Amino acid sequence: MNTTWWQTPARELHHSVQAAAADHQNTLTKPAGSLGELESAAIRLAGMQGKIRPAIKTPWISIFAADHGVAAAGVSAFPQEVTLQMVANFSRGGAAITVLARQIGASFEVVDVGVASDTGMYPNVVQDKVAPGTANFANAQSMTAAQLEQALAAGRSAIKRAIAAGADCFIAGEMGIANTTSASALACIWLKATPTDMSGPGTGLDSQGVNKKARVIEQALRLHAALLDEPQTALATFGGFEVAAMTGAYIAAAQAGLPVIVDGFISSVSALAASLLNPGVEKWFFYGHQSAEPAHARVLDALGAQPLLKLRMRLGEGSGAATAFPLLQLACALHGQMATFAEAGVSSADA
Amino acid sequence: MNTTWWQTPARELHHSVQAAAADHQNTLTKPAGSLGELESAAIRLAGMQGKIRPAIKTPWISIFAADHGVAAAGVSAFPQEVTLQMVANFSRGGAAITVLARQIGASFEVVDVGVASDTGMYPNVVQDKVAPGTANFANAQSMTAAQLEQALAAGRSAIKRAIAAGADCFIAGEMGIANTTSASALACIWLKATPTDMSGPGTGLDSQGVNKKARVIEQALRLHAALLDEPQTALATFGGFEVAAMTGAYIAAAQAGLPVIVDGFISSVSALAASLLNPGVEKWFFYGHQSAEPAHARVLDALGAQPLLKLRMRLGEGSGAATAFPLLQLACALHGQMATFAEAGVSSADA
Repeated sequence: MNTTWWQTPARELHHSVQAAAADHQNTLTKPAGSLGELESAAIRLAGMQGKIRPAIKTPWISIFAADHGVAAAGVSAFPQEVTLQMVANFSRGGAAITVLARQIGASFEVVDVGVASDTGMYPNVVQDKVAPGTANFANAQSMTAAQLEQALAAGRSAIKRAIAAGADCFIAGEMGIANTTSASALACIWLKATPTDMSGPGTGLDSQGVNKKARVIEQALRLHAALLDEPQTALATFGGFEVAAMTGAYIAAAQAGLPVIVDGFISSVSALAASLLNPGVEKWFFYGHQSAEPAHARVLDALGAQPLLKLRMRLGEGSGAATAFPLLQLACALHGQMATFAEAGVSSADA
Repeated sequence: MNTTWWQTPARELHHSVQAAAADHQNTLTKPAGSLGELESAAIRLAGMQGKIRPAIKTPWISIFAADHGVAAAGVSAFPQEVTLQMVANFSRGGAAITVLARQIGASFEVVDVGVASDTGMYPNVVQDKVAPGTANFANAQSMTAAQLEQALAAGRSAIKRAIAAGADCFIAGEMGIANTTSASALACIWLKATPTDMSGPGTGLDSQGVNKKARVIEQALRLHAALLDEPQTALATFGGFEVAAMTGAYIAAAQAGLPVIVDGFISSVSALAASLLNPGVEKWFFYGHQSAEPAHARVLDALGAQPLLKLRMRLGEGSGAATAFPLLQLACALHGQMATFAEAGVSSADA
């Protein structure tokens, strides 16, 4: 395979600045380590931004929406038209992530990368449609290799828009009825886990529905058994357009040096895909939360992730990442504004 | 004992409004329950405020500072003068909680309820000193019954100031070298736990220091064995003035109908004291975080608490509660601003 844009390595961190930021943390008027993960978050951001006192002020949220052929297998609690209806809801500002975007002062866009119906009538929807929904992976590969490239590039385009707008933090979210089925299938492959272990209620399946979903995945994994080894082939076979677009966005963000907050189960599977396609990109990732979707904890483990929140959220749309965003801002403010022991004339701990 | 102000019951919640808020949550455009603890937080706030769409806009933070006679037993990693030095740091705005207060737009005050030295030279320090430090509970009761009343009343005075200023959310924090030793002793009594189980590193003791702390507590519990049964007597025997002031503040907040975010280990012991002195006040409490101090998880269990964050923080000063504050604001915004299924024309889950 020829080299493609998504194989270019991630930008290197500023290691010496990160070390200096860690030293600075230890001079602040508090017991060493007592701000826990807020300390490590600020230190990591220092290494990303090349500033001993980092700051994030301009978050950007892209929601990628697409439909899934496998929805025809009856694997979601909601009908497929909800993808389109929710795009309209994003456009009008009534969805959870649009409320959160306003609260945290984020730029917000929704990108149609593969909704089954036309979304052109809704204002503020970026048109980057690969196709009107994937094929049903119960019978066929979800997308062609060319479509995979197109979906990855749609993610990269979002990063270009974010950077042009001056964003200093990127959050991706997804909307696509049946997309936990896609993510669960990919998690089975990459975690060497069973469909039963990786299948959860998604938007609200009962236990019978979860069992059915696991059987659909199991049969599809058998059907496509020859296509599981290469990450990009697996992604084309089981991924959704929005799953692939998030993968491309995460890779492009890491290449551009733009810190990312990964959201929930589906986003984390995209982050895992990104780290398999281009190992090293994950050093640019924060993890907003651990979702209530049971398989999410295992995907986070595979990424070596420390999620900031664990609030039993399971909505997707980037909502957990956006909810965690204020924590990164507080981490930066503490790191940058607290007095040092010397400045404050406070005695240190006994040696 | 005569009835005192702190025995007056907490204000009743608006149960019918809370039920209506729960109904409203279920109409919002997301799978039912998918916002997790953000949903329950908004619904609880609705019951507190008597508004189907609650909002919190005006947080108030009171930091109670006091010294502890038991510091003489060598139970802290920091020398006692750090209490005074940190009061100065609060006054100048260099401490973690002052940075957080600015970030979340909170009114902030530090109250001297018992610092060993005079704090009158520092601007913006509320003077409400019970005595210049407690007695050393290794030898004597920490405070007299009259001093306990005075410390509880200092907490109530803070709530009066908060309410006069229009506060709609209250955070208490503490500063007092050796105060985890006080809190651990009280936790031993009220959780029927051993000093070894309830003693942790506090500001940074090594394992030898933790063992010494546990022995100091063990001996003191034996010395005062006749004084453990009545919560107020136990509080007077082992509490610090700031521990008692937070207890009084929590009770007064619940009586006034002011929602509280409890902070870490010491604050949670004060919250437990409040619930023992006046059962029912705890229905006005949120819990900001679970601290890295090992005993905190057990105190939270005793309170039936669901902490919002678990970031391995262990600073005190109200810092965990202040860090959690934005989550309550986001919860209110989501609850109040999301579109309903009917408004957005989104299909519901399959029946």
